[in-house]
Amino acid sequence: MTSKIYAVIAGVGPGTGAAVARKFAEAYSVVLLARSAENYESLVGEINGKGGSAIGISTDVSSVESVKNAFRVIDEKFGKDASCAAAIFNAGGKFVKKPFLEQTEEEFTGVFDVNCKGGFYFSQAVLPRLLKTAEQDYKHPPTLLFTGATASVRGSASFAGFAAGKFATRALAQSLAREFGPRGVHVGHVIVDGVIDIPRTKDWLQGAGPDAKISADSISETYWYLHTQPRSAFSQEIDIRPWVEKW
Amino acid sequence: MTSKIYAVIAGVGPGTGAAVARKFAEAYSVVLLARSAENYESLVGEINGKGGSAIGISTDVSSVESVKNAFRVIDEKFGKDASCAAAIFNAGGKFVKKPFLEQTEEEFTGVFDVNCKGGFYFSQAVLPRLLKTAEQDYKHPPTLLFTGATASVRGSASFAGFAAGKFATRALAQSLAREFGPRGVHVGHVIVDGVIDIPRTKDWLQGAGPDAKISADSISETYWYLHTQPRSAFSQEIDIRPWVEKW
Amino acid sequence: MTSKIYAVIAGVGPGTGAAVARKFAEAYSVVLLARSAENYESLVGEINGKGGSAIGISTDVSSVESVKNAFRVIDEKFGKDASCAAAIFNAGGKFVKKPFLEQTEEEFTGVFDVNCKGGFYFSQAVLPRLLKTAEQDYKHPPTLLFTGATASVRGSASFAGFAAGKFATRALAQSLAREFGPRGVHVGHVIVDGVIDIPRTKDWLQGAGPDAKISADSISETYWYLHTQPRSAFSQEIDIRPWVEKW
Amino acid sequence: MTSKIYAVIAGVGPGTGAAVARKFAEAYSVVLLARSAENYESLVGEINGKGGSAIGISTDVSSVESVKNAFRVIDEKFGKDASCAAAIFNAGGKFVKKPFLEQTEEEFTGVFDVNCKGGFYFSQAVLPRLLKTAEQDYKHPPTLLFTGATASVRGSASFAGFAAGKFATRALAQSLAREFGPRGVHVGHVIVDGVIDIPRTKDWLQGAGPDAKISADSISETYWYLHTQPRSAFSQEIDIRPWVEKW
Repeated sequence: MTSKIYAVIAGVGPGTGAAVARKFAEAYSVVLLARSAENYESLVGEINGKGGSAIGISTDVSSVESVKNAFRVIDEKFGKDASCAAAIFNAGGKFVKKPFLEQTEEEFTGVFDVNCKGGFYFSQAVLPRLLKTAEQDYKHPPTLLFTGATASVRGSASFAGFAAGKFATRALAQSLAREFGPRGVHVGHVIVDGVIDIPRTKDWLQGAGPDAKISADSISETYWYLHTQPRSAFSQEIDIRPWVEKW
Repeated sequence: MTSKIYAVIAGVGPGTGAAVARKFAEAYSVVLLARSAENYESLVGEINGKGGSAIGISTDVSSVESVKNAFRVIDEKFGKDASCAAAIFNAGGKFVKKPFLEQTEEEFTGVFDVNCKGGFYFSQAVLPRLLKTAEQDYKHPPTLLFTGATASVRGSASFAGFAAGKFATRALAQSLAREFGPRGVHVGHVIVDGVIDIPRTKDWLQGAGPDAKISADSISETYWYLHTQPRSAFSQEIDIRPWVEKW
Repeated sequence: MTSKIYAVIAGVGPGTGAAVARKFAEAYSVVLLARSAENYESLVGEINGKGGSAIGISTDVSSVESVKNAFRVIDEKFGKDASCAAAIFNAGGKFVKKPFLEQTEEEFTGVFDVNCKGGFYFSQAVLPRLLKTAEQDYKHPPTLLFTGATASVRGSASFAGFAAGKFATRALAQSLAREFGPRGVHVGHVIVDGVIDIPRTKDWLQGAGPDAKISADSISETYWYLHTQPRSAFSQEIDIRPWVEKW
Repeated sequence: MTSKIYAVIAGVGPGTGAAVARKFAEAYSVVLLARSAENYESLVGEINGKGGSAIGISTDVSSVESVKNAFRVIDEKFGKDASCAAAIFNAGGKFVKKPFLEQTEEEFTGVFDVNCKGGFYFSQAVLPRLLKTAEQDYKHPPTLLFTGATASVRGSASFAGFAAGKFATRALAQSLAREFGPRGVHVGHVIVDGVIDIPRTKDWLQGAGPDAKISADSISETYWYLHTQPRSAFSQEIDIRPWVEKW
């Protein structure tokens, strides 16, 4: 039986998103949004197989219609009286590292379009649900979390588009925290400052010693911790990096 | 006779843009870009009438074609061997103050589209020219300046879209400084933290006492000062606010 | 029987320090440092009475001799082969709110002398112990945490001395994180941005609604969470504030 | 004849201080404070020899008595009705680069004692004078400027004491700006992020190409520019770095 309390995670791939989904599935039904079913299918099976409750919805967060559709499906599935406990926006957008003068417009705006504009669509869809949960005085305050990166606070050569998109999303998160915090919704921004340990990065940072990459499970613990903070002690921003990372 | 050295100012209205144009016209031919001729016509007349040299080009900086066209006109007018001494990106985009859940997509992305994406088009068009000037060992290092705002460093309730756009532009400026500084181009970001004293703000801050609004001429002095810094001492970011401003 | 693994908390009063002590006492022997025995006596009794293990040592953290003495007592008590799992520096120093021109030198340097210089003495005494623990590959990486405040990141009128001291301590924490992180010690800085709910603040913020003050227990959860982060995912800085706080 | 308008510069050595003194001597009588007469004697001679007006006062800014004495001498020299146009605090304090566990207390607090506590003494002595000037509606608003460094905004391994002292001074400058700006005194903080080109650094950064070190004259232009800002457009913080500097 699916719980009437759910968490929705946008941007489920092999790293942060999947780990967050597993973590939140220990307490809630989870809804996994990813562009292609490939990204969530086996995870949905895994969670349901272990006695949890998960559904996946193919969603392109850079399309407002696709986002709206995802929440329509959620409402159909869980009913209008279900409660959204947490929403995690982890959709990254493809970033390029390229000399500025060679970046195409699509490359420059790629991260903004998915990460910030997608975050806008997602937030507009989910915040009314979180506000409703806030009124119910549920155990943990309803939570909206955004995944940031080094580029959220630092612009770099060859990364202009990436930084522009991530700075913008940080501005969104900070603005929403100031607007919705006093209404009971906890909005947080997590700066993931390092390489995440996923299959794609298997060969990165060879020779940097043990634990030089961030385990996605550790990240998910941070998200869960933020979610469990009471409203008397909300954190808005937190950084995470491996012990050996230069910063 | 027009000088073969010019400065180009994007975003010329009654405030910062016009003041910067007047200031840089003391040393260079100036090219004024604004969406509508209304915004630059009388200023072009004024500068030319005082013995300076100014042209205006109707330009929508949120359109790559329009920006490319502006630089084609510049090249026709000044010749390919002319030098661009300074480029100021002051195009703001319309910001709205509105509860987040009532913001339309157009309202949310409005500042990004003009300020950051427009800044991208403008920078891609003008940086090759500035790099060429850098090789000529001209008196002042070629300069690319962006106009920021309080919202460049602070997200606020009801200002999510404004902050997203301005944070993004700050990321662009910072990234370009790190990429093009070592190639001789000075890229700076000016945080204008207060109300500018223009006709539209005449009735604002009544009772705040004298000089509670920023004079546009003072801002233009800052831009000029940044332009004249030698490459041994570039400033990347500077804030400007009236003495009585809370911050 | 006292555990051979201990946590040491400097600055134990009725708020953060006591709550952190209670929390860490669930896992470790705890050593409570406070200027006067009054501040820790009943808490020591409480923890020991509940089956935990606590000792108190009267310590003036602004005196290097007093800090050294505290660690001598710890070594006598636990033995040289005991492990220090965590060290929390929560000693505040008395801050004054006073027009700058009326601040005495003692008032201006008061927070620096206790918070930063005291933090220096404390860190020099405890870091060799934490480094030893790091080599033992203990369950949680050894942790050194500092309590910050709004004034850690913002200077204000009438608060020059307070801000100077807290900025300095933040610099200390950040420098230590960069130096000792790669050696396995987790150094964190917690910005407590709000009024803590303690007897002394009982009448503050009347009318601000429920949960407008930070519960010290919530703060202690944050410290514990930071302590349990694996070295692949250290947080260096986190802010905490009540949902209704302006920031 | 000495002008009745003077600028006082604390911390005059071969770099920033001397350059600032020369620059401000073009407009004002200048008072040079340095620990030893050696540091200002030839400069005093040079300025007076060129038709300017300079005096030097041997001052240890880390001693409140010494600072008070300096201002007594100033009052005797210029008279109580003279105006202080600008005060520059450039006294650095000796910083050490050393593993944290090897730093002595004197090494750790050395920068704080001179830079922040000295800045406190200096500010308390000079601000009443600057407030008086503010009432006179003089051409340029009276100005109090502090010299910062990379370590003002970034803690680093082996630089804990340096960063603590410089963060603290930045807090002082920011607090004073918020307190005295609305009273007409311009308080600014200049982050000098790079190596200054002085005899002592002659052999540094070999191979980094031309202009890789900051010319002290360029820095002095920045100070002068800040001094000339009208009160409608005060800058509080500005960074300066060579074009090739990594940051």
